[in-house]
Amino acid sequence: MLVERNRILTETIKRLMRRGSEARLAKIISKVHAADLPSVFSSLSYSNQRRLFYLIRDPEKRAIVISELDEDISLNIIEDLSLADLAEIIKNMPSDDSVAFIRMLPQQKAEAVLGMMEKTESEEVEGLLRYDDDTAGSIMNPDFIALKENMTAGEVIASLQSQEYMDVEMPFYIYVINEDGCLVGVSSLRQLVVVPPSTPLREFMAREVISVTTDIDQEEVAKIVARYDFLAVPVVDQDAKMVGIVTVDDIIDVIREEATEDILKMAGVGEEFVETKSIVRSTRIRLPWLFASFLGGILAIFIIAHFEESLKQVSYLALFIPVIMGMGGNIGIQSSTIVVRGIATGRINIRHLWTVVSKELAIGMILGVFYGLILGSLVRFHYSLNALAISVAIGVMSSMTVAALVGSFMPMIFARMHIDPAVATGPFVTSSIDILSVLIYFQVATILLGI
Amino acid sequence: MLVERNRILTETIKRLMRRGSEARLAKIISKVHAADLPSVFSSLSYSNQRRLFYLIRDPEKRAIVISELDEDISLNIIEDLSLADLAEIIKNMPSDDSVAFIRMLPQQKAEAVLGMMEKTESEEVEGLLRYDDDTAGSIMNPDFIALKENMTAGEVIASLQSQEYMDVEMPFYIYVINEDGCLVGVSSLRQLVVVPPSTPLREFMAREVISVTTDIDQEEVAKIVARYDFLAVPVVDQDAKMVGIVTVDDIIDVIREEATEDILKMAGVGEEFVETKSIVRSTRIRLPWLFASFLGGILAIFIIAHFEESLKQVSYLALFIPVIMGMGGNIGIQSSTIVVRGIATGRINIRHLWTVVSKELAIGMILGVFYGLILGSLVRFHYSLNALAISVAIGVMSSMTVAALVGSFMPMIFARMHIDPAVATGPFVTSSIDILSVLIYFQVATILLGI
Repeated sequence: MLVERNRILTETIKRLMRRGSEARLAKIISKVHAADLPSVFSSLSYSNQRRLFYLIRDPEKRAIVISELDEDISLNIIEDLSLADLAEIIKNMPSDDSVAFIRMLPQQKAEAVLGMMEKTESEEVEGLLRYDDDTAGSIMNPDFIALKENMTAGEVIASLQSQEYMDVEMPFYIYVINEDGCLVGVSSLRQLVVVPPSTPLREFMAREVISVTTDIDQEEVAKIVARYDFLAVPVVDQDAKMVGIVTVDDIIDVIREEATEDILKMAGVGEEFVETKSIVRSTRIRLPWLFASFLGGILAIFIIAHFEESLKQVSYLALFIPVIMGMGGNIGIQSSTIVVRGIATGRINIRHLWTVVSKELAIGMILGVFYGLILGSLVRFHYSLNALAISVAIGVMSSMTVAALVGSFMPMIFARMHIDPAVATGPFVTSSIDILSVLIYFQVATILLGI
Repeated sequence: MLVERNRILTETIKRLMRRGSEARLAKIISKVHAADLPSVFSSLSYSNQRRLFYLIRDPEKRAIVISELDEDISLNIIEDLSLADLAEIIKNMPSDDSVAFIRMLPQQKAEAVLGMMEKTESEEVEGLLRYDDDTAGSIMNPDFIALKENMTAGEVIASLQSQEYMDVEMPFYIYVINEDGCLVGVSSLRQLVVVPPSTPLREFMAREVISVTTDIDQEEVAKIVARYDFLAVPVVDQDAKMVGIVTVDDIIDVIREEATEDILKMAGVGEEFVETKSIVRSTRIRLPWLFASFLGGILAIFIIAHFEESLKQVSYLALFIPVIMGMGGNIGIQSSTIVVRGIATGRINIRHLWTVVSKELAIGMILGVFYGLILGSLVRFHYSLNALAISVAIGVMSSMTVAALVGSFMPMIFARMHIDPAVATGPFVTSSIDILSVLIYFQVATILLGI
């Protein structure tokens, strides 16, 4: 449905751009929901991206569109914009988006734009820029509704109509603070309308408020919001003073980002963005990850070279290198993926190291015996060499067993050492498995074949 | 923070269980937030899980806890519960959770429980059970606020205090329906309190409402909620009649689930749950996926056997099988992961097949030339055999180039054929790459070495 909608909109806009019907384009753009525009940009050339953005006249729409665009597209458009345009766009963004946006700008431009903004606004943004990337502070919104506990429901409702709270993004929770600005309770719009208007907040607010501090990792914030089904979670500073809220829409972005990051890390494409268009940049990111696999390969060369005499005598031995490596590699990926994802979602507890590893080990052994016996029988049947058949069978079994062990043990150990387990998967696990598989196989074969 | 909180709670409960202090346990459990309990269960033995659940006396808390538990734990507890207990729990669940819960029960038990429930309730649940798994219908909540357009803001607020709407989960949107129950507009609690009480809904409601139909895939619903930053999206049936809402907290679960599913599928652990404790079940799920890799390995045996004469003459050839397969395999996983995740997040457009594939191809070639030259030089230096060095270099280059091509092309083609691209990765891609790498390497070597 969304896909179809995107397609139609994209095609209409492209057709009108080809025809140069700027007036009709501007009309369509003014009608369409701002959230529908970003997907159109990725189908356009760089020059048409700038042209389309220029046609968005409403500054608020511009702000929504540009904060949703992929980074390379935003950077392309930003180059084309004047400082005044940039300042106008930032002014119309929720503060949390404007922080992410300013972080993307080149240093000089960022400072110039901040200089052009009104003092209260630039101070607010600069305040947020202090927080480290990926913390609650960096994704929070400093506009929220915080009132004193002696206010009545009726007074609260009246104050919601004031200019001060017009900018608040998701005004569903009413936070209650004391004289020092510390969070003491929370209520909701829902409760406000169901209690008699004269009831003071203190009488119906909830006193147990779950909050996060500004330095907490955004992934942790996401877990809290997901666990308690919150629409927003309040953020407090070191002095327990309330300084912002993180809303559920930002949490959705965090959850998607983190899942993508985990997947990419596991494949050894570390910090590559899916949308990266630069071949040079992608190459540079992937190169070092492949180095682990390259080193593993070099090590395998030495291992096999060590058994060269055996290979000369029984050249059959080489035939089974791919199947033994492949079976080990694949079950290794299965085990490590289950464990890495289990840790990320909290389903696997890193304190249960042995339970997890021994389960994977058992699976590896069962599957190893299964495929080892099949392959051994095929070899026995085809080559009529018992010792070769047994070597190959043991090769598959041990390779799969070791792979399941390494694939589950490494991420668990990394997690315990507070190193991201997703990084431990991919090239590292596969290279270790490759080396171990080849080593065990040749060792067993030389012994059994008596060479 | 959350981890620390879990740890303390879990340890306290375990200690009290060892001591048998049921009274103190019951007290702690009554105080703790229901959402904090599920993580405790996964650290307990099956018998203690039943014992702990029995200590939760509040039926609403029981409902929250059991719908958040991992499936194997829920099933363990369910076995211990009477039909009356089950009916009581289901009664206290939001309808969307109760549907998921009843789907988990054995057929007979499910029917017996539905028979015990009040007619209106069981009818509601049975109505939802009609929808296919993973559709908007199956995750929607049939309790929502829908009013007529001539009602005034004041009347709406008054009606929110009525018993009818007490059960509504997230009453932030006020939907407006016509005589036939068709959705014609939407307003929000926020707007209700800022307009004068005498204003009728028709004057301030938004007329353009984005809704989904009951049969739409939950992933699609998640994309809509994420794109427009909704807190809930209305669900309509074929006749445009409003039948439910999907709330953002359920969308968060969908996004996490889908990310996990994608990751597991890519690794060829298909429908395995991270929390599956049964070794037999995990083994059964992984076995067929490994078969693809096994067949690939068998094919590789025949390919290498075809070049057996060359191997006998130049036994060195075997040394480089692992590094060539490994480099191909790893870059293949990188390319396919980038593409699969790009498609899943909508960052890669499947209509841009050639743009995507040619980018990956270029990266594969650059990295292939890089690592091919390094390995070739090392071989030239160490063995002083030019032809072998060139064969190995070409082997690495072609293997990496082909891997990037296959790794990006296969998921794109699968996506175009409306087959889940995540499935195309993992064993299928790696096996194809293994076979092609070995084939090209030996072919090039026999030609260059003149054997």
